[in-house]
Amino acid sequence: MLIESNQNAKYKHWMKLKQKKHREKAGEFLVEGEHLVKEAISHGAITEIIVREDAIMDGEFAAAGPIHTIKAGLFDKLASTQSPQPVMAVCKMGLSKIGACNRLLLLDAIQDPGNLGTLIRSAAAFGFDGIILGDGCVDIYNDKAIRATQGAIFKLPMERENLSLAIPRLQQGGVRVLGTSLAQATPLSGVSASGKLAFILGNEGSGVSKELLGLTDGNIFIEMREFVESLNVSIAGSVIMYNFRQ
Amino acid sequence: MLIESNQNAKYKHWMKLKQKKHREKAGEFLVEGEHLVKEAISHGAITEIIVREDAIMDGEFAAAGPIHTIKAGLFDKLASTQSPQPVMAVCKMGLSKIGACNRLLLLDAIQDPGNLGTLIRSAAAFGFDGIILGDGCVDIYNDKAIRATQGAIFKLPMERENLSLAIPRLQQGGVRVLGTSLAQATPLSGVSASGKLAFILGNEGSGVSKELLGLTDGNIFIEMREFVESLNVSIAGSVIMYNFRQ
Repeated sequence: MLIESNQNAKYKHWMKLKQKKHREKAGEFLVEGEHLVKEAISHGAITEIIVREDAIMDGEFAAAGPIHTIKAGLFDKLASTQSPQPVMAVCKMGLSKIGACNRLLLLDAIQDPGNLGTLIRSAAAFGFDGIILGDGCVDIYNDKAIRATQGAIFKLPMERENLSLAIPRLQQGGVRVLGTSLAQATPLSGVSASGKLAFILGNEGSGVSKELLGLTDGNIFIEMREFVESLNVSIAGSVIMYNFRQ
Repeated sequence: MLIESNQNAKYKHWMKLKQKKHREKAGEFLVEGEHLVKEAISHGAITEIIVREDAIMDGEFAAAGPIHTIKAGLFDKLASTQSPQPVMAVCKMGLSKIGACNRLLLLDAIQDPGNLGTLIRSAAAFGFDGIILGDGCVDIYNDKAIRATQGAIFKLPMERENLSLAIPRLQQGGVRVLGTSLAQATPLSGVSASGKLAFILGNEGSGVSKELLGLTDGNIFIEMREFVESLNVSIAGSVIMYNFRQ
């Protein structure tokens, strides 16, 4: 049955999923576009599929869950991009637990959803075992963050934990925890990649908090020209992860 | 004198600079925020400074060029961000010529302004001598691109050139030109960083064009997990540039 009204109960529910508080209440989030929907299907995360009335349906979608067809105008209003692909899905929230701790990324108050999503994508690419999301990080179910992960949100184990508790816990388990800082730091190329290793990336404006830097086993900086003050945090993190790749 | 009307001739001119065709006609572009305006001043790129009526002026700005104060509502409409800092500047276009050719980045149809700006920032950070912007690249004077450069747009030599002409020209000058590709490629960690070196990054969707890959002295790929299909292009480029840093 075609959903034609913005007063339809399902449609109203989906529209609410664009806001963080409603996502958390429902335990659901939206993904957009064929690639992300297929990733969600292959990871069993789907509860419903939403297609625009004019979409040519991919057979793969039909088996994955209930399909709702909606008017183009309503679909486009629900989508977060300007020229959306004609398929979306509602997914269950639920991060997979971090198993191995050979390589971990710790995030301290990363605010930009694009940076967060890109870091998740790079962490998956470079074989990291997981990400610990500290306090103050932007919501990973934000549409921009999900889009930037390019599907890695379904592949990479992630947990939320206060980093001032996570760091000593990891250290007790034999993980060397490194900060990123320009002061009292070792150049990346001089840091040994052996053993269990975690490193912290900090907020886009203020970097890793002083409190957390006080808990680390050392700090890393990325060698660069002095007249450039800093790198984008998703760039810095990815360069470090490539160098520590598994 | 306070500019209070959106019919003011100067204001109308500035508003037009938000569009590429008018920027090119005028040979001018806008930068926003204290950091970028100061970078523009220190590189002599400023023609006019625009401040919001409620701004507390930095003395540094006064000496740099004529200052125009405008109504808050007009300023916010001119700005491209939602909560703009209260200062902007009109800058002269003009890229500095590439001098040395020990390390060059060649860009083939990079479409996302954030990616372009981030690559410029990373190229400056890792000591690259310049960027050659091939056909089909997004405008570097786009506000998102400028913001992502964090000022590096004023620091890094850049030239526009058709890459199918640039590659043989560089090769004749003793520069090894590498493509980026998953096929017939050497892992990044296996590529020698000695000698003069340039590498090509391609379009976000389609990668480096086949025609250009046919001209290179070899191709690089970045070692990563197989289940992740690709990296963001600004990440890939920055990881490579770090490894080839000067």
